[in-house]
Amino acid sequence: MRISELSRRTLVPVGTVKFYLREGLLPAGTRTSATQAEYDEAHVDRLRLVRVLLGTAGLSVAAALEVVAALDSPPGPIHDLLGVAHRASGSRAGTAANEADRHRAVALVRGRGWQVHDQTPALDQLAEALAAMAEIGLVDPEAVLDSYARAAEQLAEVDVAGVPTGDPVAAVRHVITGTILLEPVLLALRRLAQEDVSARRFGSS
Amino acid sequence: MRISELSRRTLVPVGTVKFYLREGLLPAGTRTSATQAEYDEAHVDRLRLVRVLLGTAGLSVAAALEVVAALDSPPGPIHDLLGVAHRASGSRAGTAANEADRHRAVALVRGRGWQVHDQTPALDQLAEALAAMAEIGLVDPEAVLDSYARAAEQLAEVDVAGVPTGDPVAAVRHVITGTILLEPVLLALRRLAQEDVSARRFGSS
Repeated sequence: MRISELSRRTLVPVGTVKFYLREGLLPAGTRTSATQAEYDEAHVDRLRLVRVLLGTAGLSVAAALEVVAALDSPPGPIHDLLGVAHRASGSRAGTAANEADRHRAVALVRGRGWQVHDQTPALDQLAEALAAMAEIGLVDPEAVLDSYARAAEQLAEVDVAGVPTGDPVAAVRHVITGTILLEPVLLALRRLAQEDVSARRFGSS
Repeated sequence: MRISELSRRTLVPVGTVKFYLREGLLPAGTRTSATQAEYDEAHVDRLRLVRVLLGTAGLSVAAALEVVAALDSPPGPIHDLLGVAHRASGSRAGTAANEADRHRAVALVRGRGWQVHDQTPALDQLAEALAAMAEIGLVDPEAVLDSYARAAEQLAEVDVAGVPTGDPVAAVRHVITGTILLEPVLLALRRLAQEDVSARRFGSS
């Protein structure tokens, strides 16, 4: 198909498709003349993925490029996929935490027997959030953190159980999109459930 | 204390404290001369909260002002606090979802018997994320969504159970900080638990 049909099928404007081509987010089509190229179903799929990564998932172009690279040449061990997904989507998160905050995060993780790499970016993210909670003074953070860690364990089992292990490309796609896209789903569901529990307990106004 | 001590106690630079004062995020001190004012422990507390809201929590100045206003004059019904917290911290999320996507989100919520307001912003956030998942094609979204909704229900029970109902100011602080600050904690814990489950199932490299 021509670029105009690719645009019509995906509802992505032609100018945006050209931008993705220039940035390497979408592979070039098969050139049919000096000014035209043909695109196929693989381009439709990739275009939809890139739009979601840059849109809903909120990735930068650089992070989306990293995801696309992992799709084009999947890393061997399936465990390494998670690293790609986490790195690509973690780049929004900020600064390295200080040593004391980091120590608290590591203690929490070790206390649950979780096997995680010392340099994994989520440890800094956790450390920073724990430091903020401590500074403001949440009521009974230990009980809350225990419930949250248990929920995280249950979700992680579901997430990893769903990875299609037979097909590397499907596995990459699943890990990356599942990791990144389920985050807004989880946050939205938590807020909706909070509203429900609060309405039932305190009565809505 | 003088502004210089306020700055030293909280590690917030004097220029930033002055910015917070100008923006109304921090109440004025008690003027002691044409160029000086006295600040107290309430200023220290508020300054720490504002720094966390604008920093880790990632709120805009306008959203932080809304939170601070709720602290200064708590809304009567406790249920309304949640609305303030969700509105203040939901302003980062984007666009209104289209009707079909919204219908899917409402169906999921109604299917679980959750009592939520039709116009609650988290419905749009959920709708947008579900649309993105559908577009990319996640494996077996129903099973995943069921697990995620159950986890959200458990977390919401914990969140709401922790609200101190006797003291309005403590309740506002708890709801707002709990709602906003536990989001990065939850996301970080999920990623760490994923890494652990993946390491145990697939072996780390």
